[in-house]
Amino acid sequence: MIDLVLIGAGTGHPDHLTLQGVRALQEADLVLIPRKGAGKEDLAHLRLAMLARHRPDGAVVEVDLPVRDSEIPYLQGVESWHDAIAQAWAQAVDLPQGGTVAMLVWGDPSLYDSSLRIAARLDWRARVIPGITAIQALCAAHVIPLNSLGNEVLITTGRRLREGGWPQGCDRAVVMLDGACAFQTLAPEGLSIWWGAYLGMVEERLESGPLAEAGPRIVTLRAEARAAHGWIMDCYLLARNGAH
Amino acid sequence: MIDLVLIGAGTGHPDHLTLQGVRALQEADLVLIPRKGAGKEDLAHLRLAMLARHRPDGAVVEVDLPVRDSEIPYLQGVESWHDAIAQAWAQAVDLPQGGTVAMLVWGDPSLYDSSLRIAARLDWRARVIPGITAIQALCAAHVIPLNSLGNEVLITTGRRLREGGWPQGCDRAVVMLDGACAFQTLAPEGLSIWWGAYLGMVEERLESGPLAEAGPRIVTLRAEARAAHGWIMDCYLLARNGAH
Repeated sequence: MIDLVLIGAGTGHPDHLTLQGVRALQEADLVLIPRKGAGKEDLAHLRLAMLARHRPDGAVVEVDLPVRDSEIPYLQGVESWHDAIAQAWAQAVDLPQGGTVAMLVWGDPSLYDSSLRIAARLDWRARVIPGITAIQALCAAHVIPLNSLGNEVLITTGRRLREGGWPQGCDRAVVMLDGACAFQTLAPEGLSIWWGAYLGMVEERLESGPLAEAGPRIVTLRAEARAAHGWIMDCYLLARNGAH
Repeated sequence: MIDLVLIGAGTGHPDHLTLQGVRALQEADLVLIPRKGAGKEDLAHLRLAMLARHRPDGAVVEVDLPVRDSEIPYLQGVESWHDAIAQAWAQAVDLPQGGTVAMLVWGDPSLYDSSLRIAARLDWRARVIPGITAIQALCAAHVIPLNSLGNEVLITTGRRLREGGWPQGCDRAVVMLDGACAFQTLAPEGLSIWWGAYLGMVEERLESGPLAEAGPRIVTLRAEARAAHGWIMDCYLLARNGAH
């Protein structure tokens, strides 16, 4: 029997790792590292540095992830891609007597991450160690509360914001997985934005202000940062003014 | 000048603390501990254990928090209560040359917590170290994702759920600050619930299932646990079925 421990690794600061996460890394029989090919080398280096610190014995197995077939419809493509990833994990783990496999997941394994769905395809027993999400890293970097007093917050995606507009009944929304600055599709009057990229990393970039003014600055800054690094991970909080 | 570092302490497991949080605790000139009076002694003991481990020098100042005046209207009452807390913090900190004051905040300082709003009343410079929220601890305990694939999640409160019913357009909602099992006000058909109390603590209690069946079990379990401990902290995730 394989026990899989998915460890939330935080958003890019090596010290976002919790004491619980450190212990799980140290106690695992091996650490599985998915290698995603080109791009995001900064994150790959950061992960290797975390492992060098907490698993100096080098009990680490890297596994090349299969590439999603973009020729077939998205949801169907995701299903067969997850099947293929599960197979790659199983092949990489050589523990005939069973044991514990740890995997570092950026952010938290519960939020916009597929590791749990992939693990469900295997006859492994999964556990989760919670980690710092980009939402908390964003609020911490800006030193702001996520919610206005006693009110709700929507966690949504760039695609949903673009399709659905400002969420009815909410005064605050965090937008993740947005590759195309979906905030540009909103009427900016009365909205404020707090944006962050590479949160927790030395490359961290922040911008905020009324959406009408900060929005165009963010579009430019994001394009420049993405060109300079070759990749970007960012998210933002939107608030209707008057709500604090 | 006083630097205030608000450190997310997680939900009740001493190892929810991040490495960043440990370092901030260790580097502060003193640690400020709000003492809330009766109840929640388990949490108070847990915090003292964390401090004994990370600040064995005992550079800790306890401060008795003023009690909110329940005679005046809620929002106005909160305002003057926060004023009084800020004053109590300032009186407890004796650092005439300035320095860094650390404070442990359960969960994360950005989510349903007033420390940032209280700090804004003082001429102090606030920083935040993100921490594990009850939302992540809940999902980790149940080994489930927070969101269904690519969809949004609403973070809301018991009061808002009771007043507004099921949030339009959402297939998932996390409910916090619910002292009265507001899920009972929903038509349970087609809804599932994942509930957790004392998340991360040895006392952790979990319950889940279709809302029609699990809901009544949770009401009973919650009342029993609250009576046994003298206090309870809990939250839950609701999902419309068919969304995974």
